Amino acid sequence: MSNLRIPGPTPCPPEVLEAMSWQMINHRGPQFARYLSQITADLKTIFRTNNDVLILSGSGTGGLEAAVVNTLSPGDKVLSVSIGVFGDRFASIAKTYGAEVIPLDFEWGCAAEPQPIKDALKANADIKAVMVTHNETSTGVTNDLESISKIVKEAGKLLLVDAISSMGSIDLPVDDWGCDVTVTGSQKGWMVPPGLAMISVSPAAWNAYKEASMPRFYWDFGKAKKSAEKGQTPWTPTMSVFFGLSVALKMMLEEGMTAIIERHRNLAELTRQTAKSLGLKLFADEKFASNTVTAIRATDGLDSKMLTKIMREDYDIVLGGGQQTLDGKIFRVGHLGWFDEKDIRAVFSALKETLPRAGYKGA
Amino acid sequence: MSNLRIPGPTPCPPEVLEAMSWQMINHRGPQFARYLSQITADLKTIFRTNNDVLILSGSGTGGLEAAVVNTLSPGDKVLSVSIGVFGDRFASIAKTYGAEVIPLDFEWGCAAEPQPIKDALKANADIKAVMVTHNETSTGVTNDLESISKIVKEAGKLLLVDAISSMGSIDLPVDDWGCDVTVTGSQKGWMVPPGLAMISVSPAAWNAYKEASMPRFYWDFGKAKKSAEKGQTPWTPTMSVFFGLSVALKMMLEEGMTAIIERHRNLAELTRQTAKSLGLKLFADEKFASNTVTAIRATDGLDSKMLTKIMREDYDIVLGGGQQTLDGKIFRVGHLGWFDEKDIRAVFSALKETLPRAGYKGA
Repeated sequence: MSNLRIPGPTPCPPEVLEAMSWQMINHRGPQFARYLSQITADLKTIFRTNNDVLILSGSGTGGLEAAVVNTLSPGDKVLSVSIGVFGDRFASIAKTYGAEVIPLDFEWGCAAEPQPIKDALKANADIKAVMVTHNETSTGVTNDLESISKIVKEAGKLLLVDAISSMGSIDLPVDDWGCDVTVTGSQKGWMVPPGLAMISVSPAAWNAYKEASMPRFYWDFGKAKKSAEKGQTPWTPTMSVFFGLSVALKMMLEEGMTAIIERHRNLAELTRQTAKSLGLKLFADEKFASNTVTAIRATDGLDSKMLTKIMREDYDIVLGGGQQTLDGKIFRVGHLGWFDEKDIRAVFSALKETLPRAGYKGA
Repeated sequence: MSNLRIPGPTPCPPEVLEAMSWQMINHRGPQFARYLSQITADLKTIFRTNNDVLILSGSGTGGLEAAVVNTLSPGDKVLSVSIGVFGDRFASIAKTYGAEVIPLDFEWGCAAEPQPIKDALKANADIKAVMVTHNETSTGVTNDLESISKIVKEAGKLLLVDAISSMGSIDLPVDDWGCDVTVTGSQKGWMVPPGLAMISVSPAAWNAYKEASMPRFYWDFGKAKKSAEKGQTPWTPTMSVFFGLSVALKMMLEEGMTAIIERHRNLAELTRQTAKSLGLKLFADEKFASNTVTAIRATDGLDSKMLTKIMREDYDIVLGGGQQTLDGKIFRVGHLGWFDEKDIRAVFSALKETLPRAGYKGA
């Protein structure tokens, strides 16, 4: 079994894995209804929301597609605030379904700046929604969603948030920040295998839903809500991940969200400081460095692909590579979910030996 | 733990449940690539196809949506051959995405007749595709897909097949019968929890894909194929169900598909004969009765809802009810996947005691 240190799927605690092996139950019966009801209540606590929270069977990308098709119509103007691969993906989905996407792209490694967002909203009064990534997994940057949300809400626009790799690990008070649709995925800070997207939907998003004419069936929020009222899902749910999530949520609420957010902050800080002590350069602007994933530049002769290969083959530690234009230029250390200090120390103890073998001539 | 006797999710063998509890691995690494490659090869064997087989994370309904959006354009004329709830759902999906659906509905409990299909294709030369359910779970009827396929292929149309509750349990040679898109789901005869849709795509379907303009992103066959060539999936896959499926496929190929199909036939026959021996009336036309699920009419005073409640609460056996207009009019016994004779005998031993308690005055 490898030590998985990528930004999702994340390692799962034994209690969660045990739950994954529970025998199937009737997805239209009273037992499933109890799971769905308890899980939904726990998610609302962690999302810090009174909005509906829906659970759809699919990956986080499916959740992003759901956010788009349930709130928009073809031709709707949307502002895409992108700082990396996943921001671009959110925009691609909206384009695919016929939205008119106004791209507002920031340099990879940087966070989105509030002023250009304000300007874009002023320049395009007919924008209907703003799509933004809270935590960009590809670059290890966390946007200042609180400031962005203020601007979006002042302009009276819908705020669609990709919180896939932040929710449950990084503070994100959905109602305080006026997030209309907030998407996360089970395989991130939730310590659960992939297979479920969990999504909050505000009253304003439900109003948009009524008007929205992009085609929707599988991802239809209305069908999910109607079924949830009967303690069901519209289609057969990814049952085992529901089991795993029920256990993980109990563990999370026992640890407490304040403690969990603090733990992520400390482990991220430990990761960044230890990397820098080895002379490594962080990819992200440190003011906005993510607390769930750290991207490290391949500088000073470092062959990042050789590094991840040696780490995997000789130390059984799996790190992330760079995606798209960052391929070969960075490597990434995930530290979200079921992680503690010794996990991070183990990564760096192996890295210290691996770096010179992978060509690194830095400090 | 209840004894689940519904037509999916089905009970899973201990070996499969154990695999569901395996720790996460990197979905972009070599180990996952090996799983994907072996699973795909095994699926091709069972599908009896040389076509591509893609594995998408979602339920069977997601697979049906994929079949539609990857082959059709808004305005395309499609013939919907429906014999129940799931045939109607397939048509609804196509309508949602703007297809012009020509409904050809047969009485629930009956199979589709070949001649009206032939007539409809003759009357509408511009039909692009025919959508058909192989095994209709809501009524317990298996269509004569071989005959239907001959007609559709003679007319040169695309054949989109919902084989969710048949593939892997009932004979369905994809290539011999010219199925262009064939959809199944992990929670049926595969003995695996829900979370994956497995879909074969013929060269003709790929040609249609090139022209098809319905919006697609998450369900995009092309993205899935391109990723599969690198041993990956485009989005984070429902990993644990891949693990479970890898084990289940090994078990299935060890038992052998001829033996599996024969076992399903025998257990279905046992179910039907035992039901009739209690004076119960089958809902399905017996010539087309399904070998994966048996629907039984609530006649002679039988309160089917009371019956399923007593069976669940007093005998720990979960049966299916009727869906939509069949609610309260039938109950259903699933016998697909990990089932043997003693499972069926246990159902009827409990049923014998329950029937009179639920008002049944029959033989």
